[in-house]
Amino acid sequence: VSDKLDGEDLFIPPLNFAMVDNGIFRSGFPEPANFSFLQTLGLRSIMSVYSSQPLSLIFLYFLFCFSPVLLLPVCVSVSVFEFDDPFRIAFEYPIEELGVKSLPCMLLLMVCLFDWVFVRYLCPEPYPEANMEFLKSNGIKLYHFGIEGHKEPFVNIPEDTIREALKVVLDVRNHPVIIHCKRGKHRTGCLVGCYRKLQKWCLSSVFDEYQRFAAAKARVSDQRFVELFDISSMKHLPITFSCLKR
Amino acid sequence: VSDKLDGEDLFIPPLNFAMVDNGIFRSGFPEPANFSFLQTLGLRSIMSVYSSQPLSLIFLYFLFCFSPVLLLPVCVSVSVFEFDDPFRIAFEYPIEELGVKSLPCMLLLMVCLFDWVFVRYLCPEPYPEANMEFLKSNGIKLYHFGIEGHKEPFVNIPEDTIREALKVVLDVRNHPVIIHCKRGKHRTGCLVGCYRKLQKWCLSSVFDEYQRFAAAKARVSDQRFVELFDISSMKHLPITFSCLKR
Repeated sequence: VSDKLDGEDLFIPPLNFAMVDNGIFRSGFPEPANFSFLQTLGLRSIMSVYSSQPLSLIFLYFLFCFSPVLLLPVCVSVSVFEFDDPFRIAFEYPIEELGVKSLPCMLLLMVCLFDWVFVRYLCPEPYPEANMEFLKSNGIKLYHFGIEGHKEPFVNIPEDTIREALKVVLDVRNHPVIIHCKRGKHRTGCLVGCYRKLQKWCLSSVFDEYQRFAAAKARVSDQRFVELFDISSMKHLPITFSCLKR
Repeated sequence: VSDKLDGEDLFIPPLNFAMVDNGIFRSGFPEPANFSFLQTLGLRSIMSVYSSQPLSLIFLYFLFCFSPVLLLPVCVSVSVFEFDDPFRIAFEYPIEELGVKSLPCMLLLMVCLFDWVFVRYLCPEPYPEANMEFLKSNGIKLYHFGIEGHKEPFVNIPEDTIREALKVVLDVRNHPVIIHCKRGKHRTGCLVGCYRKLQKWCLSSVFDEYQRFAAAKARVSDQRFVELFDISSMKHLPITFSCLKR
C-alpha cells in the first residue's frame, strides 16, 4: 500500500507520528503500510506500550473456558443418573445427533472452539505476524510493556511500568527508538509527558504537547498522572536535547 | 520568568514548540521566557518567517510620510503668494504660535513625529531588542524571510520565499535551526509541509501534522498551497531522517 508521485513511492508515516527528541520518535500502532517509511528511520528498537485487551475481557475469557469444566460433575451426574427429563432432552438429544458419544467430549469441543475464536479474533497477538517479521528482517528489538487502554474514569496507569519503559527509552544504546501504543495519544502521551518532566519542561508546555496529539480525546486523568509522576529517583539520568550541542 | 521545581528552574519551550527532524525545530515567536530553554538546543540559526505588518499598513505608512512632501509646493505657494485667506489662517497662525518660522519646517516636524510613532508603536522591529541580544550573545545567525500573516481568504503565500527558506533549512551548516513565525501554525506549518513533501510524505500525513499545530485555526488555503508546491526543482537535495541511520 503506497501512494505514487511521478512514479516514485510516497512514504506513509504511522498515525500521529512525530519526533520527540534525538533518536526518539512516537506514533500510533505501525501498520504494514508504514513499514517502508519506518525503514528510513533506521530504528534499533520499538517501545510498545500497547496491550490489546483490557483485564475485564481476559477475566471473561477464563470464566468461559473454565465454566464447562466446573459444570462437568453436574452435567455428568445429570446424564448418568437421569435426574430430570428436560436435562436429557437438552443435552443428550443434540449430542447423539452430532455423533458425539458423551457429554464430556462435547464440552471439551466447546472449550476448544471458544479458545480458537478468542485467540484468533478477540485477543490478537500484541504484535501481528507481519510486524514481527518486519522487526526480525530489520534487526529491530521489541520492548513490550503492556499497558491496558482504558476509558475514563477507569484509568489506572501503572507508574512502575512507565518508569521501566522510560529507562529503556533513555538508554541511547536503544536509539533510534519509536514509542507507540494504539493511537499514539494516551499511553504514548503519558510516557512522553514523563520524559518531558525529566527534561524539566514546565507543566503547561508538557500538557500542551499532550493535547496536541490527544486533541478531543485528551484526558484529565492522564495529565494528572504526569503531574504526579515522581522523577526524583531518575534525576541522575542525563537528559537534554544533547546530541545537538555544538 | 521561570517556574521552579525543588528549587530548580523549569524550562519554558516556546509556543507550539516541536522537533521536525534532526537539527530542525519549529515554534511560535520566541519570548524572553523561552531563552533559557532555547539555549539547551545549542542553536546555530533561526529561520524567522515572521513579518509584523501586512503590506496594506506599510503602504499607508509611505502614503502618510510622502503626502506632506507632495503637498509642499502647494502649501509654499499658498503661504508665499497669499492665494487665499483661509489657507493663511489655517497654516500660518498655529505655526507662529509654536515659534516655527516656516511651513516647510512644520511639515518636516510632522513627518518626523509620524515616523517615530509608526516605527515605535505600529511597526515593531521584526526582532525585539531582547531577542537580538540573545542571538548575538549566543552566536545565533538570523535568517529573516518576512511572510505576511493573513487571514483567509486574503492568503497569498509567496512560493519563492518558501523555496529560499527551505534551502536555508535544508543546509546542515545552519543546523540546529528553529523555524518560527508568530504562533507556529500557518506560515511555519506551510514551510514544514513543503519540507515533508521533499521527504516524500503522503499528503494525508502532511496535512495531519499541519492540523495538529493549527488545530481549530487550520486553513484549507495553506494546505492547498502545500499540495500545489512544486518540489521538482529541489529534488537533488538529500533529505531523509538521515543522521539517524545506523
